[in-house]
Amino acid sequence: MATQRLIEYDDAAPEVRAVYDDILATRKTDYINNFWKALANDPVTLKRTWESIKQIMAPGALDPLSKELIYIAVSVTNQCPYCIASHTSSAESKGMTGEMFHELMAVVGMANEPTGLAGEYQVEIDERFRTA
Amino acid sequence: MATQRLIEYDDAAPEVRAVYDDILATRKTDYINNFWKALANDPVTLKRTWESIKQIMAPGALDPLSKELIYIAVSVTNQCPYCIASHTSSAESKGMTGEMFHELMAVVGMANEPTGLAGEYQVEIDERFRTA
Amino acid sequence: MATQRLIEYDDAAPEVRAVYDDILATRKTDYINNFWKALANDPVTLKRTWESIKQIMAPGALDPLSKELIYIAVSVTNQCPYCIASHTSSAESKGMTGEMFHELMAVVGMANEPTGLAGEYQVEIDERFRTA
Amino acid sequence: MATQRLIEYDDAAPEVRAVYDDILATRKTDYINNFWKALANDPVTLKRTWESIKQIMAPGALDPLSKELIYIAVSVTNQCPYCIASHTSSAESKGMTGEMFHELMAVVGMANEPTGLAGEYQVEIDERFRTA
Amino acid sequence: MATQRLIEYDDAAPEVRAVYDDILATRKTDYINNFWKALANDPVTLKRTWESIKQIMAPGALDPLSKELIYIAVSVTNQCPYCIASHTSSAESKGMTGEMFHELMAVVGMANEPTGLAGEYQVEIDERFRTA
Amino acid sequence: MATQRLIEYDDAAPEVRAVYDDILATRKTDYINNFWKALANDPVTLKRTWESIKQIMAPGALDPLSKELIYIAVSVTNQCPYCIASHTSSAESKGMTGEMFHELMAVVGMANEPTGLAGEYQVEIDERFRTA
Repeated sequence: MATQRLIEYDDAAPEVRAVYDDILATRKTDYINNFWKALANDPVTLKRTWESIKQIMAPGALDPLSKELIYIAVSVTNQCPYCIASHTSSAESKGMTGEMFHELMAVVGMANEPTGLAGEYQVEIDERFRTA
Repeated sequence: MATQRLIEYDDAAPEVRAVYDDILATRKTDYINNFWKALANDPVTLKRTWESIKQIMAPGALDPLSKELIYIAVSVTNQCPYCIASHTSSAESKGMTGEMFHELMAVVGMANEPTGLAGEYQVEIDERFRTA
Repeated sequence: MATQRLIEYDDAAPEVRAVYDDILATRKTDYINNFWKALANDPVTLKRTWESIKQIMAPGALDPLSKELIYIAVSVTNQCPYCIASHTSSAESKGMTGEMFHELMAVVGMANEPTGLAGEYQVEIDERFRTA
Repeated sequence: MATQRLIEYDDAAPEVRAVYDDILATRKTDYINNFWKALANDPVTLKRTWESIKQIMAPGALDPLSKELIYIAVSVTNQCPYCIASHTSSAESKGMTGEMFHELMAVVGMANEPTGLAGEYQVEIDERFRTA
Repeated sequence: MATQRLIEYDDAAPEVRAVYDDILATRKTDYINNFWKALANDPVTLKRTWESIKQIMAPGALDPLSKELIYIAVSVTNQCPYCIASHTSSAESKGMTGEMFHELMAVVGMANEPTGLAGEYQVEIDERFRTA
Repeated sequence: MATQRLIEYDDAAPEVRAVYDDILATRKTDYINNFWKALANDPVTLKRTWESIKQIMAPGALDPLSKELIYIAVSVTNQCPYCIASHTSSAESKGMTGEMFHELMAVVGMANEPTGLAGEYQVEIDERFRTA
């Protein structure tokens, strides 16, 4: 669709450019990902999505790298190649080592297996997990 | 199915009991989850699954709490109620606070949303993510 | 919704009853599953779904038990409790033993794990698999 | 990531080569799939995954071809292109005909449809399926 | 977890109550769903989620009933019982008839089937769909 | 697999050609999608799938454009690139504007997020949703 073209900074309307500026400043980078350039076809969704991600991925009780690892875990489970590529890149820039990456993948792989087992065996949730 | 009953310690065959003993010792607990008691109907799968989880969830480049958070993220994405309940309980015992829990859920929720957006907009993966 | 009530044989309209009769005759049983009784709220979908299932699950290059095992594998992966319960029951009536059930679950569990691994590692499909 | 390169036999460390040798011997082939060459970046996961698959896919109550069909069913449901390609190739080498393949796909497609129907109609599980 | 209790209006902190008031006024109702009462344990997520939903579900190029139908379609595909129940109720209040509901379910069921077929058959996307 | 080649009209067996003719007439087009050409390797599944889709997507209580939007919503949630491409094309031909497309994507994205939230918070279904 024509609507799916990537909107470059120089072609962007003022409200899109304002979001791009905030992305660049917040992330201390000079690069806008294709994801944002595609979303920019719908400026309202672009702004809402960016503001949500900015708020959610900020340092808090969990540090930014832990949040990236969690994001990758969901992206792999959902089989979203774009999300995997961009958040793996982002996690590396925040300190993810090759060893951490391998352990992350091992946990994600394992977490997908017992899901099936618990599903078929129709395991009852332990009383102590309910009352916690 | 008759095969789905929970196998209690006292009724367990020696090879099942050996796994139960290792679970109790490794986790420093006196409680066996229903998940293991259900899997015990198939002793070979019980042993293989436990040994894999034991290896994967051990401290490494990622600490045990981070691994539990990643496990929960996958379980929520897969909508596996049993997995969510047991690993939330496990994460709490390893120090997950209410605030950490809320941030974890916010990241998981957000990570599921752009998945759809990246999918429909058919975003091309940025060249710089490919060559990293 | 009122539309989700179960439609019993005695309350069924003629076109629903005709499907029920065909289910009973084809399956050589005197029992109609709740799934059909719920679908009966939409007679057109009931008829189309039954005729598709009847055609697909009939003996062919694959025997009926193999088809039930495949059905269960999909249902577990999709986490559909109703589908799991009804097709496990059906598979047992066609000769699935406890041992077969355990091996089925082991394959399903494993098949869900490498999915994640192949996804994250972005494994290229081997040339020889493409040209086969 | 650099960590995602494929590790060829000649470049492999001894513990990776040992796994490769076991794959070649067990499968009576002279070819290592890209999946293993990618996993080899993490030798511990390579070894654990291979040993699990070797154990699970071995002949038992279910024959090897039936296991491949089940594996494909899960892979299609999970939309894992690599898994589909490699296990379809493997199933063909074990005797899957074009007719069996078509029937497999028909069951998988159908098994994904009633999932939605059972989900929305919130069908109660029949008492007789619970007590089996 | 203690964090998962439902927060009633009378027990709510001011920032939570402000969101509840906006929900009640926007939806012209005197009832707060359990979903919001559970999210209220995390006031920041409550506020962000409500404001996003309020913006997204408002009348626009698509009317509110169409948006509810789309919401249900995703919820059924994701097998989220809570989402199905609450949005079905919401759609009914906006005019969804039993007949519309049945057609919605038929489309959702069918849309899940060819997914599998397109996946396994590895259908190439038609050139004319790419250039549109 | 050889079985996955696309079957062109001129190479098609009579029973496949009959389905193609019906597709061309029903859709008032002179183009057969690759999806059908791939399914044509299994004429029985081709015919059953086409007849089901023809029946389900026909005008009824829901208009054809609404049905296409629902179809896209499921396809995006399932991450099926072929389905997304073909049904987006189809929806455009039935009048979907860029603005409608953006709103559709926003609803789909949002509908995937609370799924996670409702799952983890284990929200109880409101009594009033059950009795409706």
